[in-house]
Amino acid sequence: MAASTADLVREVREFVREEILPLEPAFLHHGFAAVLPALREKRQEVKARGWWLPPFPREWGGMGLGLLEFARLSEELGRTPLGHYVFNTQAPDIGNMEVLLKHGTPMQKERFLKPLAAGEIRSSFAMTEPEHAGSNPVWMNTTAVLEGDHWVINGHKWYTTGFEGSAFCIVMCITDPDHPNPYARASQIIVPTDTPGFQHVRKIAVMGEQGEDWMSHSEIRLQGVRVPKENLLGERGRGFAIAQERLGPGRIHHCMRWVGICERSFELMCGYAAKRELSPGKPLGSRQAIQHMIAESKAEIHAARLMVLDAAEKVERQGAEGARVEISLIKFFVAGVLQRVLDRAIQVHGGLGMSDDLPLSFFYRHERAARIYDGADEVHKTVVARAVLKEYGLEVSL
Amino acid sequence: MAASTADLVREVREFVREEILPLEPAFLHHGFAAVLPALREKRQEVKARGWWLPPFPREWGGMGLGLLEFARLSEELGRTPLGHYVFNTQAPDIGNMEVLLKHGTPMQKERFLKPLAAGEIRSSFAMTEPEHAGSNPVWMNTTAVLEGDHWVINGHKWYTTGFEGSAFCIVMCITDPDHPNPYARASQIIVPTDTPGFQHVRKIAVMGEQGEDWMSHSEIRLQGVRVPKENLLGERGRGFAIAQERLGPGRIHHCMRWVGICERSFELMCGYAAKRELSPGKPLGSRQAIQHMIAESKAEIHAARLMVLDAAEKVERQGAEGARVEISLIKFFVAGVLQRVLDRAIQVHGGLGMSDDLPLSFFYRHERAARIYDGADEVHKTVVARAVLKEYGLEVSL
Amino acid sequence: MAASTADLVREVREFVREEILPLEPAFLHHGFAAVLPALREKRQEVKARGWWLPPFPREWGGMGLGLLEFARLSEELGRTPLGHYVFNTQAPDIGNMEVLLKHGTPMQKERFLKPLAAGEIRSSFAMTEPEHAGSNPVWMNTTAVLEGDHWVINGHKWYTTGFEGSAFCIVMCITDPDHPNPYARASQIIVPTDTPGFQHVRKIAVMGEQGEDWMSHSEIRLQGVRVPKENLLGERGRGFAIAQERLGPGRIHHCMRWVGICERSFELMCGYAAKRELSPGKPLGSRQAIQHMIAESKAEIHAARLMVLDAAEKVERQGAEGARVEISLIKFFVAGVLQRVLDRAIQVHGGLGMSDDLPLSFFYRHERAARIYDGADEVHKTVVARAVLKEYGLEVSL
Amino acid sequence: MAASTADLVREVREFVREEILPLEPAFLHHGFAAVLPALREKRQEVKARGWWLPPFPREWGGMGLGLLEFARLSEELGRTPLGHYVFNTQAPDIGNMEVLLKHGTPMQKERFLKPLAAGEIRSSFAMTEPEHAGSNPVWMNTTAVLEGDHWVINGHKWYTTGFEGSAFCIVMCITDPDHPNPYARASQIIVPTDTPGFQHVRKIAVMGEQGEDWMSHSEIRLQGVRVPKENLLGERGRGFAIAQERLGPGRIHHCMRWVGICERSFELMCGYAAKRELSPGKPLGSRQAIQHMIAESKAEIHAARLMVLDAAEKVERQGAEGARVEISLIKFFVAGVLQRVLDRAIQVHGGLGMSDDLPLSFFYRHERAARIYDGADEVHKTVVARAVLKEYGLEVSL
Repeated sequence: MAASTADLVREVREFVREEILPLEPAFLHHGFAAVLPALREKRQEVKARGWWLPPFPREWGGMGLGLLEFARLSEELGRTPLGHYVFNTQAPDIGNMEVLLKHGTPMQKERFLKPLAAGEIRSSFAMTEPEHAGSNPVWMNTTAVLEGDHWVINGHKWYTTGFEGSAFCIVMCITDPDHPNPYARASQIIVPTDTPGFQHVRKIAVMGEQGEDWMSHSEIRLQGVRVPKENLLGERGRGFAIAQERLGPGRIHHCMRWVGICERSFELMCGYAAKRELSPGKPLGSRQAIQHMIAESKAEIHAARLMVLDAAEKVERQGAEGARVEISLIKFFVAGVLQRVLDRAIQVHGGLGMSDDLPLSFFYRHERAARIYDGADEVHKTVVARAVLKEYGLEVSL
Repeated sequence: MAASTADLVREVREFVREEILPLEPAFLHHGFAAVLPALREKRQEVKARGWWLPPFPREWGGMGLGLLEFARLSEELGRTPLGHYVFNTQAPDIGNMEVLLKHGTPMQKERFLKPLAAGEIRSSFAMTEPEHAGSNPVWMNTTAVLEGDHWVINGHKWYTTGFEGSAFCIVMCITDPDHPNPYARASQIIVPTDTPGFQHVRKIAVMGEQGEDWMSHSEIRLQGVRVPKENLLGERGRGFAIAQERLGPGRIHHCMRWVGICERSFELMCGYAAKRELSPGKPLGSRQAIQHMIAESKAEIHAARLMVLDAAEKVERQGAEGARVEISLIKFFVAGVLQRVLDRAIQVHGGLGMSDDLPLSFFYRHERAARIYDGADEVHKTVVARAVLKEYGLEVSL
Repeated sequence: MAASTADLVREVREFVREEILPLEPAFLHHGFAAVLPALREKRQEVKARGWWLPPFPREWGGMGLGLLEFARLSEELGRTPLGHYVFNTQAPDIGNMEVLLKHGTPMQKERFLKPLAAGEIRSSFAMTEPEHAGSNPVWMNTTAVLEGDHWVINGHKWYTTGFEGSAFCIVMCITDPDHPNPYARASQIIVPTDTPGFQHVRKIAVMGEQGEDWMSHSEIRLQGVRVPKENLLGERGRGFAIAQERLGPGRIHHCMRWVGICERSFELMCGYAAKRELSPGKPLGSRQAIQHMIAESKAEIHAARLMVLDAAEKVERQGAEGARVEISLIKFFVAGVLQRVLDRAIQVHGGLGMSDDLPLSFFYRHERAARIYDGADEVHKTVVARAVLKEYGLEVSL
Repeated sequence: MAASTADLVREVREFVREEILPLEPAFLHHGFAAVLPALREKRQEVKARGWWLPPFPREWGGMGLGLLEFARLSEELGRTPLGHYVFNTQAPDIGNMEVLLKHGTPMQKERFLKPLAAGEIRSSFAMTEPEHAGSNPVWMNTTAVLEGDHWVINGHKWYTTGFEGSAFCIVMCITDPDHPNPYARASQIIVPTDTPGFQHVRKIAVMGEQGEDWMSHSEIRLQGVRVPKENLLGERGRGFAIAQERLGPGRIHHCMRWVGICERSFELMCGYAAKRELSPGKPLGSRQAIQHMIAESKAEIHAARLMVLDAAEKVERQGAEGARVEISLIKFFVAGVLQRVLDRAIQVHGGLGMSDDLPLSFFYRHERAARIYDGADEVHKTVVARAVLKEYGLEVSL
């Protein structure tokens, strides 16, 4: 990595350690809302240091980092559940920003992207529906019908992350149900959350907690929701194509973050193994079973990082479509490493690892979803195999 | 299994399904305290049906089942986090009852065992200390000094399960610090929780929740706590021996319960695979990856159950000491099966599996500790290996 | 297990240790043919002791043991690659004997079963074809056409175990290609190996060796081979049904044997761990990594044995068809345990484990096929899942 | 990788495919000696093309490639068991050459290195002793005593690879048994194999075969073997230090080769999955279980390659000592990937995968040792953990 990137990474690491980690205990014990005021102050400080929105262009207030550079930084931010939020690169906002930047009309950019990039508002993204398997993206019931100058939307979505407190939500809707190509039937539409008919059914209790604000997942209903037709984001019928565009880099973002979680967990595990004693003068780390957990974690994290950086580089060179196989590979491989490393870190800590005195149990609970969201392991393995077998002359249907 | 046991198991299964499972959603979304009144009613019904305290003698209000019979029943109760509580066989009460029954003085039985067996009070057990690794039981700081007719206790414990709401706590204390045999230095002392100096530091937040009442784990402090010397439970200096006695069957109890959790999770997984569609007419269960998760779970649960029953039978024949290797084998083997089955059940359910709409996420969070409590995997593996290698002429120190 | 069975098992174990294990080094270094004369002597001794053909009826010279009793014995014989041969219970002869006993005509029994049960001849069984996947049993090219009083057979088979030196081969042939039910198209026909047109293409080199006599696998061709029509074994069109009948118990036989291999490997591993020193006074077994390999193997072998015995008991009670799920479960579960235990035993032995100075490397090479023959893991997992999902209302096609 | 390297890699891949792979069937069925004459011709062709000894300096007839460049090439050569031999980069010769180049006297270089680099002779390396665990390198019995102008050597070694046919053997001997530092007690001495007293006890049968010539492993004895004192290789007492020097890059060499084996196995697996049919029109590759084996292999091979290249680069930058942790990481990680990929490739091929009609079974048998030789998995994991824990302030003894 370039010297300047290395410097930045080092400085950000220190910032995370000095400024964000101290907020973790309050977050872990009292929830996101309890630390939100403090996080807002940290956001100001990040802006002041010129680190705001690192992967976004300078004209929108970002640092203009490339994907590979940001990958290094993202690992640092991923070391705590609060990191990306402080830099305004949390999902789904960063994904929404990228889509708005690329496909938004001047009006949409002014009205939605600008305050989002500035961190003045938050947004959400509604795709998955409780009635349909998330692994089949083209199967959905939410519809938008053009009536005069308005889209009229009806539907039911869940796992809409960060809906609570979001100013608008980008909603995937079937707009062209009769199109012969099922991938050309949906469109993305921007819906302000205060639009009449937009109902918040509930925050879904996930792994024992409903969460708050950005850290929550909602079930929502849209009943006769009307928005102006200019709220269509991108071309009509291109909803899936645009979603695919966002999910490619989005998966890289997740993987980068997971490497950060792994590294943090690894440090906690090693630090504890080095100092916790089984009996006077005999630290945990003197046990071979613990040593092997450390060595296996080291190897797997190293592999994960190299693969993520390699994929990021390929995306830079060839675009997300050209790196599709690499992205699917890291999606399931790194998620697997993440789960194993977290499991070992908890095991090394014993009862302490189960408690909320450390972030391990938070990661363990919530990142179990890493093998599910944005394409379950099984889906990505099939994607990889299909691409490979095609080179061997076999076309496999999904 | 005998026909009468089979009938009982079937009836209890139905009772669990009809009477206890309906309380689960409220428990999962609102916590233990929210369902406690209803659970108390269910306890009355269990008593009325003659099913109270199945593994306890009839003269104490139990059914007098042997360990092997109870193993079958325990699996049924384990299908929900609420099952054992309703039958008054939840840890640590059942273990405390067994110790009181075997080692209690008539006064102790009258005062502590009687209301406990009747379900009128709850109890707790304080052994682990935050300053010392749980995997080294003989290393503790809590002391009890005999001053006149009283034990004066000072110490610091954590992961004292169900302390909140318990009437008394059995506390492991060093009473004979200078005894040459480190296993002969501790004693168990019964301490009413309202004794002056007995401080509740906090309920430990575990996997995101503090829990309530029986379903909580506390950090406690004893500062100059004085109890009459007749509160000594069993002989002085036999604290570890008695603890060992309780932990053997206690581990069988856990393993039985885990098989129940596995079976429940398996049913949820299969039911969902059979009905959830990936696309119209194509259920999840038609996918080979899902089928293999089902088959592997079936095999592992079958293995786990056979091993638990085999160990229970050996305990019946030879006592817990004679089945020490078998108990260690099932402790780590079944805990491993449990974790893998839960993981697969969640994966099959996707986002739904992460939510509290099903009990899977509760089990996943809280039973991660199965590989830690009552002896971590690593401890039990070493116990087994030591016993095996001894047969080959090698004495291995821990 | 009954006292008499326990005695028998103990005596056979001693016989294996005293009489058969000493032949192993010559076998491992010089091959099966080198020890064949000695094995023939051992067979006489087995007959003299009244242990011949344990699972076969007394009127055919066997001991008349039930499947559950034989399971215990089979484990002892499985401890060495030579064990079953000495007791005349090696595959495929034992399977051929069972089929002949149940379906053979008086002529067939007199001519083929009698000398086979007496150990005077050997036999083989030809099913798999190189052109077709073994996991699809109904897809084969070998045909038998009735011309007058003779079947005229044409086909190509491989992995015909023990063809070399066999007096006859039972050949699966398509006799009714137009039957609407694909499972009713094949028949089993007894073909003496000296019949004109029966060609031995080659002994297949498997894992580096062609093997000899019983311990070899052949590729064969049948070109215009004519046998009398009374060589049809069982009913015409029932070839698959009869094959299925033999494969059920056959899989139990394999699993029993594998448990014996596991137990032998475990003993070698423990014995070596107890005595091999890493440095003066520090045996391998003092290392926690080795201890954990021992403990994990102990647990898995215990699970495997219990499952095999449970399945054998169910076959005794309900027949192979009634225990179909249990048989598939043990087929893949025990094969997996076998591979892991062998892997650990070799790892503990280091370079010695790779050598032919121990039987581990033989088992490792040749029992890799345990996860392939008689139904690959993937097939059995699917069989189990189908049966399970059927209970949940889902019919899954293979 | 640089364009020129990419070109070279492509040309070498083609050469391997066109010129070496056709020799594989004869090798797999008839052994190394059977193809040796043909391999000698291929060596001439390699020389003619200017590809001889790629990682060795030009003045010794090599190509002068750096480690990173050679890593790419080595993967291509590793695709067949015969590849490295044809380029004269097979172990242990390449390691012996490196040691002679760095530490040899002018006489040693002239007499031993020159013909070795030219491929006119072969050499061997004797370190491991049957009486002592290979994982404790400093524990050996072989001694060399200086008597006048000669070293007199007595000892017993095994797993001396390629001893058969080697012109000389570099022997690790204890020369300074009383040195306080056990790592300073041994020296390396060059011993021509025709020296009186140098006995070939046997070729060790490994995984069912003794092998021949370079592809064999010998047990040897040295009884009063006398060689001139100038046969000391490097400084007296530096035997372990020099061995360590050679083992670092040697492990990289192995790992590179293993990635080649993985890639070859992957291609075979994918090619077979694409064309082998389970039933007419339904190829193996249409099964999800097969697809997942392909995807998991793809991910693991990708990870392995990136880690090997990363380690090679670090060795280039910082020397083998500076990359010690990385080398240990890849040693156990890549060996694990290798074993899993081979296992899956065999499973996909079914019976064919067990046979010697493909190289898979050769790799499976002989590369089981990858997790044992040059430091068992357990040793390397401990090395990594020690280095990591040292950063956390804990010194762990081995």
